[in-house]
Amino acid sequence: MPLIQVEMFEGRTPEVKREFVEAITRETCRVLKCQPAAVEIILRDVKKSDWASGGVLWSEKK
Amino acid sequence: MPLIQVEMFEGRTPEVKREFVEAITRETCRVLKCQPAAVEIILRDVKKSDWASGGVLWSEKK
Amino acid sequence: MPLIQVEMFEGRTPEVKREFVEAITRETCRVLKCQPAAVEIILRDVKKSDWASGGVLWSEKK
Amino acid sequence: MPLIQVEMFEGRTPEVKREFVEAITRETCRVLKCQPAAVEIILRDVKKSDWASGGVLWSEKK
Amino acid sequence: MPLIQVEMFEGRTPEVKREFVEAITRETCRVLKCQPAAVEIILRDVKKSDWASGGVLWSEKK
Amino acid sequence: MPLIQVEMFEGRTPEVKREFVEAITRETCRVLKCQPAAVEIILRDVKKSDWASGGVLWSEKK
Repeated sequence: MPLIQVEMFEGRTPEVKREFVEAITRETCRVLKCQPAAVEIILRDVKKSDWASGGVLWSEKK
Repeated sequence: MPLIQVEMFEGRTPEVKREFVEAITRETCRVLKCQPAAVEIILRDVKKSDWASGGVLWSEKK
Repeated sequence: MPLIQVEMFEGRTPEVKREFVEAITRETCRVLKCQPAAVEIILRDVKKSDWASGGVLWSEKK
Repeated sequence: MPLIQVEMFEGRTPEVKREFVEAITRETCRVLKCQPAAVEIILRDVKKSDWASGGVLWSEKK
Repeated sequence: MPLIQVEMFEGRTPEVKREFVEAITRETCRVLKCQPAAVEIILRDVKKSDWASGGVLWSEKK
Repeated sequence: MPLIQVEMFEGRTPEVKREFVEAITRETCRVLKCQPAAVEIILRDVKKSDWASGGVLWSEKK
């Protein structure tokens, strides 16, 4: 029952998200030896103004 | 100090959310023997296009 | 597909955890109108030395 | 590599968020003895209608 | 900067975890068009006595 | 009611954790204009064998 929660910058298209969950589910099943039905993935879009690395919001990086 | 974080599909009404947090808090206190004031609940609405089960986004399931 | 993640102080017995997930699942299904099979619950035990309220770890409260 | 995930009520200005991530990163590095580049912070705005304390949503508190 | 948090049943070997993070990072970069250095993955082992599906802990399923 | 969840490598002493939650709570209150009692912090120790950056577990980095 792997549960995979992913934070990524907002802006990905539905097609990219679809390909992403397909690929992640496939690799998870291959490596962890589980059934696809057991894999849950939740995607969370994050704004660049809500993510900081090194103390700087990505919306302010140059 | 139980902390309960809930992901659910978006679309629930304020009335349903109110009833949900009341019920979950009540049952948490009853079973875990804690005070209501100790129970924190955070609800997160998730779009069907951001949740995949079995490698398929719920927005694409038929 | 509600996903419920719960942080609680460590120390609950298996019997209490069993009763807790039964009660939370039942109430979730009743209020959100979903099937029990759709409800996933993950419990995380937290040490009092890893949880702070008001700037004080619970392991240090008197 | 501390990862810091913060839930707060929505409504903070970009300036407050910027000051917040700066301060949290600075204190994290000072106390945990790590480099700023190692600190990741994700902010999540939460509506008062999605956060309950004591079984009552903050949108309904008086 | 995708951040990927994974809950899985405890018991995977270090070799399996290594292969898992390699595969997930590779697919994430391929699909989301990002650099490997940008991908952070945190694995959390979950006991079967701390995960419930359908109101039943996995430690009690038959 | 800020909720702050922190993942860090295991191994910090209780003294460091105490100083950390004090500092984070103080700065949170100063910048977000909230009361200390409103700040909840949960610390989660992560093994180097459960955290990967750039596709490599920290337990395997040289």
